[in-house]
Amino acid sequence: MAVNVAVLGGTGQQGSGIAQRLLMAGVPVIVGSRDPGRAASAIATWQSPNRPSSTSYAQAIAASDVVVLAIPFDTAGAVIEEHRAQFKPGALVVDVTVPLAFTAGSVSLADIPEGSASEHIRSRLPAHVRLAATFKTVPAHLLTDIEQPLDCDEFVCGDSAAAREEAGALVTAVRGLRAIDVGPLVRARAIEQLTLLAITINRRRHVHAARFRVVGL
Amino acid sequence: MAVNVAVLGGTGQQGSGIAQRLLMAGVPVIVGSRDPGRAASAIATWQSPNRPSSTSYAQAIAASDVVVLAIPFDTAGAVIEEHRAQFKPGALVVDVTVPLAFTAGSVSLADIPEGSASEHIRSRLPAHVRLAATFKTVPAHLLTDIEQPLDCDEFVCGDSAAAREEAGALVTAVRGLRAIDVGPLVRARAIEQLTLLAITINRRRHVHAARFRVVGL
Repeated sequence: MAVNVAVLGGTGQQGSGIAQRLLMAGVPVIVGSRDPGRAASAIATWQSPNRPSSTSYAQAIAASDVVVLAIPFDTAGAVIEEHRAQFKPGALVVDVTVPLAFTAGSVSLADIPEGSASEHIRSRLPAHVRLAATFKTVPAHLLTDIEQPLDCDEFVCGDSAAAREEAGALVTAVRGLRAIDVGPLVRARAIEQLTLLAITINRRRHVHAARFRVVGL
Repeated sequence: MAVNVAVLGGTGQQGSGIAQRLLMAGVPVIVGSRDPGRAASAIATWQSPNRPSSTSYAQAIAASDVVVLAIPFDTAGAVIEEHRAQFKPGALVVDVTVPLAFTAGSVSLADIPEGSASEHIRSRLPAHVRLAATFKTVPAHLLTDIEQPLDCDEFVCGDSAAAREEAGALVTAVRGLRAIDVGPLVRARAIEQLTLLAITINRRRHVHAARFRVVGL
């Protein structure tokens, strides 16, 4: 896998987990951050054998074939709109966001007019930029604890077969993850609901890393 | 488990699978049907060691502590409204329906104003009747092929902890199924999306019994 991957929000738990797991698989990764200096300090503490360089969102996007969107959903639309002009022609955005809403001790999905976080993001991306969604269900703190086995499936949807295949190749590169292609981007609605189920199960069962495997393949 | 269970729509694939699997577990089951004579002929062909009696919807509902709603979602609301007066006080309805819509070779979930099939059904049940949802994701044709191991999880949600526990006990009675309590009835939205994912995976992978297991418990 020779593509350059930018992980935006690479110092958050989910982003740092994805970045480190991809680095362990030999994928070239850079981290895009609002504050590249702070990101460099965070990266210096990572356990992964290789460590990425950090740069601004704009430079990370401009330099990369694949842009993993690991920033909070609330800010994702604005970040994309601000950087629309920087995407490479035909770049692939990999959306890993889930619009979780925590209120009074309970968790739910925010009501997104487009139907899902991924569809919301699709509506803000330039037409030439392709979009896939994955890494939405594997628990962030498990990803970031790089000694821990993952042993689960990750669902992939996207706006074309090629987009799903390329995003699926990133999933497969991570040891212990199997990619399950579930078709068009609208399936992000189901995937985001799965994340909500996983969090619900964690809370009810007092566990921390509920995740899913498909039986019957 | 001494409760009497009525399976409405017990001659469909899903209903006959649930009824036979419960009978194999020693649960007393009767089948409720629009046409009890036709149902009796269908039941005579079942492989299960015991065979249930069949009766009308009205008599099945009136006789049972638990009513499994295994009729097509399109007809469920009308059947409930027609038989509102027949439910025992405090009866438990177990909704297993999924509002699948097949159009031009693709499958989706019908748009339900209440948010899910289960919430739609809740709005039509008398207040004294309790509601849980489960058996929505295990493939119907696998349930009905009673020699086949299931080896998967079934998600349970419902309008009270007691309702979820009683529905979960039915799930657990079926060999090879583990019950996963995911909380309030609104979680049926996620469970119904999971069924859609399973069907999508079947189609894309050319398999017939994709189903789910939770990892990390």
